[in-house]
Amino acid sequence: MSGKGTAVGVAGLGTVGASLINFLAERPAFSPTGRAVTVSGVSARSRDRQRTADISGFPWFDDPVALAASPDTDIFVELIGGAEGVAKASVEAALLLGKPVVTANKALIATHGAALATLAEAHGAPLLFEAAVMGGAPAVKMLREAMVGDEVDLVAGILNGTCNYILTEMEASGREFGEVLVEAQRLGYAEADPTMDVGGADAGHKITILAALAFGCAPTFDAAEVEGVERIGLLDIRLAKDLGYRVKLVATAARSGAEVSVRVHPALVPLDHPLARTGGALNALFIEGRRIGRIFVQGPGAGGGPTAAAVAADIADVLTGAVRPVFQTPAASLAPFTPVDSSHVLGRYYLRLLVRDQPGVIAAVSETLAGAGVSIDSFLQKPVEGAGGVPIVLTTHAVIESVLSEAVRRMTALPALLEPPRLIRIARI
Amino acid sequence: MSGKGTAVGVAGLGTVGASLINFLAERPAFSPTGRAVTVSGVSARSRDRQRTADISGFPWFDDPVALAASPDTDIFVELIGGAEGVAKASVEAALLLGKPVVTANKALIATHGAALATLAEAHGAPLLFEAAVMGGAPAVKMLREAMVGDEVDLVAGILNGTCNYILTEMEASGREFGEVLVEAQRLGYAEADPTMDVGGADAGHKITILAALAFGCAPTFDAAEVEGVERIGLLDIRLAKDLGYRVKLVATAARSGAEVSVRVHPALVPLDHPLARTGGALNALFIEGRRIGRIFVQGPGAGGGPTAAAVAADIADVLTGAVRPVFQTPAASLAPFTPVDSSHVLGRYYLRLLVRDQPGVIAAVSETLAGAGVSIDSFLQKPVEGAGGVPIVLTTHAVIESVLSEAVRRMTALPALLEPPRLIRIARI
Repeated sequence: MSGKGTAVGVAGLGTVGASLINFLAERPAFSPTGRAVTVSGVSARSRDRQRTADISGFPWFDDPVALAASPDTDIFVELIGGAEGVAKASVEAALLLGKPVVTANKALIATHGAALATLAEAHGAPLLFEAAVMGGAPAVKMLREAMVGDEVDLVAGILNGTCNYILTEMEASGREFGEVLVEAQRLGYAEADPTMDVGGADAGHKITILAALAFGCAPTFDAAEVEGVERIGLLDIRLAKDLGYRVKLVATAARSGAEVSVRVHPALVPLDHPLARTGGALNALFIEGRRIGRIFVQGPGAGGGPTAAAVAADIADVLTGAVRPVFQTPAASLAPFTPVDSSHVLGRYYLRLLVRDQPGVIAAVSETLAGAGVSIDSFLQKPVEGAGGVPIVLTTHAVIESVLSEAVRRMTALPALLEPPRLIRIARI
Repeated sequence: MSGKGTAVGVAGLGTVGASLINFLAERPAFSPTGRAVTVSGVSARSRDRQRTADISGFPWFDDPVALAASPDTDIFVELIGGAEGVAKASVEAALLLGKPVVTANKALIATHGAALATLAEAHGAPLLFEAAVMGGAPAVKMLREAMVGDEVDLVAGILNGTCNYILTEMEASGREFGEVLVEAQRLGYAEADPTMDVGGADAGHKITILAALAFGCAPTFDAAEVEGVERIGLLDIRLAKDLGYRVKLVATAARSGAEVSVRVHPALVPLDHPLARTGGALNALFIEGRRIGRIFVQGPGAGGGPTAAAVAADIADVLTGAVRPVFQTPAASLAPFTPVDSSHVLGRYYLRLLVRDQPGVIAAVSETLAGAGVSIDSFLQKPVEGAGGVPIVLTTHAVIESVLSEAVRRMTALPALLEPPRLIRIARI
């Protein structure tokens, strides 16, 4: 650390970067150590873009790698985003020089976390990423630090505020996905290119990171099963509610022996469950430990203020001089990610058909399921105006996914069907 | 730290101490540093009491101060309890020798936290107490570490599992306080001497600690306003529910400028509020920061497993070598506790009377309130079997407490009243 203060280089000046700059200007001595935190320089794609923070007093770097390597930079703060390119290069440059890195980059950590942890630990440089998951709610700190006296078997929750906002609004306003998405973009709840959010990858990055922290396995985003909310229609949201459920995009990391499953998919959650009651852009997470039991945490999942506060907390952590592995386990001991064999995994399902209003349809559907050995838990046939047919909804008892898929495949051949069956998992949380 | 491992001296061998001993036997290398944690010795009031942990292999100390001072003890773990006596003496002895202390002792920290923090910081010894609040849910870590990039204005929640269990059971089973307390004692949810729990002091200790962490003020239990649940009757639980509320023992720490209020009291919480939905022995906490907004955390509040896991996490934190103030602020900078001037504090109230069934009573009650300038929000008169009179319930609009107290004093003179009026605050969370 140079002089009496600590200087951070801030690469990436979007809402989080601007919030951080403003925070440091307002409270440079925010850290409990009292040591002033100053800005060694800033970097972003465009110098002249209008920003909510005044950067005129800071040295400008066109190249974030140069900012990371600058002798004036004590701690490198990476807020560029993206798993590759200059974000990765600048983080690597800082770690190679033994400089602590604080990042909000979930894609980078979920994809290259193990290699970066190895680099960080080899050079004695902390690599912190609280801001990558759940904005201001300290999900990373809880798993990395508070749960070390326990064994975690399950981490599950709502990790993408955009999807949660859209699903909440669809239900509340009775509008379809596309319409609500456009509104969310207008209100700043969704990006101009919403693919990462609505396609589930953003939540996938986050749950991949949490799985690594919880289970000591190398973060391996490629191994995550990810499904988004684009195909969720108002009809299913309404019918699910009639059955006592709410549709949520649920991210789950579960351990079963040495195997780990990391998944993001729409799921039905009972209406009185805390996840069902997590509305709007909020995020929420369950952590289940063998000794501690269940801890539930809920908070704003994103936004400049909360995310910048998480970055600041990480900077303060660096200043304490704590030496700990990047994940809960030293990089050299991280287990390879061993996906669970899903051919044996049992689950309950919501199955919705849209059929012609003619006799014998229900009998044909139930026979097809019975023939495949799928047992029905509840059954609902309900006329819905404007649905273009009669919706038949049923929920299954626990069934092996491949067995159900085979039954659904057979069902698709029924002549009364107006569209392919819709399958949504019922959450097991 | 001696040799290649770290040795902890464990003073106090109740459920938490026994759980910790068993945990360390099972997973000595639980810390992410991989350094083995062994036991240097144990101490408790009685050596021969039957325990769920095998302590025969550990040196026995009759005097916990001697265990703290033993050259074999690297970290002193204090699980004795109580604000004074050997608990305090042994913690002081360890800190004076520069030894890290991990404690679950809320009374000690709430009462002597500032002096102990001064001692700890002067001797460069960490003093950690995650296990003092909310068992396995990391409330202390959240405030001490995760919120340093924010300013916290409010911390409020349910911090005593015994009271919450009793209130939950009263509502669920329709039995009165005394009966449910006896059952709670039989099931291990309440101590043989339940005074600290049901009288509110336990929650008072915890919220005092959280206030110190949140606001940087010296923990000052004596300044906390504490009221327990002993006077809560089934009648009020039922009537509150009719009005859309649940009675909870709510602990609140709020900052208003330089003034701080720390209170524990029964309060009415709307039925759909997360605190109202925190049932049984669970604890729950809201933390409200200016930047982050509201974070909610819920988990088991006590129990040997969760609390020992919190102690283990603190031991792991010590091993990282982190240097940070005991509270969020260095001991020398802790502000003196400045209580809020409650004569100006506005609040809403539930007021319940039990009156003779005779004409004119409602008029007399409303006139008395109107005369005092108290404005009524809702009014409910409802016959309740076995109540011994007619209950009249009303909720007020926001009113200064002293104004309402004066109105209630005048009301007590009404001849139709069968017992003194019951006032319960409506939570402002």
